[in-house]
Amino acid sequence: MIKKIEHIGIAVENPEKSNEIFAKLFGKTSYKTELVESEGVKTYFYKIGESKIELLEATKEDSPIKKFINKKGQGMHHLALHVEDIHSELARLTNLGFEAIGDIKQGADNKLICFLHPKSTGGVLIELCQEQDPV
Amino acid sequence: MIKKIEHIGIAVENPEKSNEIFAKLFGKTSYKTELVESEGVKTYFYKIGESKIELLEATKEDSPIKKFINKKGQGMHHLALHVEDIHSELARLTNLGFEAIGDIKQGADNKLICFLHPKSTGGVLIELCQEQDPV
Repeated sequence: MIKKIEHIGIAVENPEKSNEIFAKLFGKTSYKTELVESEGVKTYFYKIGESKIELLEATKEDSPIKKFINKKGQGMHHLALHVEDIHSELARLTNLGFEAIGDIKQGADNKLICFLHPKSTGGVLIELCQEQDPV
Repeated sequence: MIKKIEHIGIAVENPEKSNEIFAKLFGKTSYKTELVESEGVKTYFYKIGESKIELLEATKEDSPIKKFINKKGQGMHHLALHVEDIHSELARLTNLGFEAIGDIKQGADNKLICFLHPKSTGGVLIELCQEQDPV
């Protein structure tokens, strides 16, 4: 079962400028940044109600964020949904015809994650996220 | 003050197909549809935690949703943020350099709304929403 919007990922070209903009919008600075080396992404987190906004900066040329910006320009990149059990939820969804991109893996923010291909979701890159116990 | 994500607006090409997809994803059908004639948009609502997903179908050729799909393909169109007082929040944000698109107006779902231009937000079309008392 999908419980809430965990976060919205936003691809940004200039993290300094975008962090300034989002800090003004929300009236607070990002509470955490995290480098996800394997994905070529640096993430800046803002809490907003029960959800988060994550600004996504490409840290290398072949980062998916770089490719996205080259194709569509900066803006909303993915919609992340909070699930309690990512394995059972992914099984339910692939049975219904959704197409996973790769396997369940370790993501930013101490989460297990898996992406669903936009071809199977009507154009939206969807991330399933399961919170893990703090290490 | 921005309190929560009110909704994510998703531009869809084929509402029947996308409603089928999102009903499978969330395990429930949309609880409401609404035609916003002035905007050339038909909206399908899904509740998810404290937020909503709104699927947006273009109902005429010059609908902003049609233009968006022609340019970027179907997918996430805007990020709507819940505010308690849209007039004071819009004044705060325009003072900080955000650019409003037109004036505050009546939107779908009994809300007062105003859009912020993506040029001033780092590429994200942002909607401010204030809930109105039920009519």
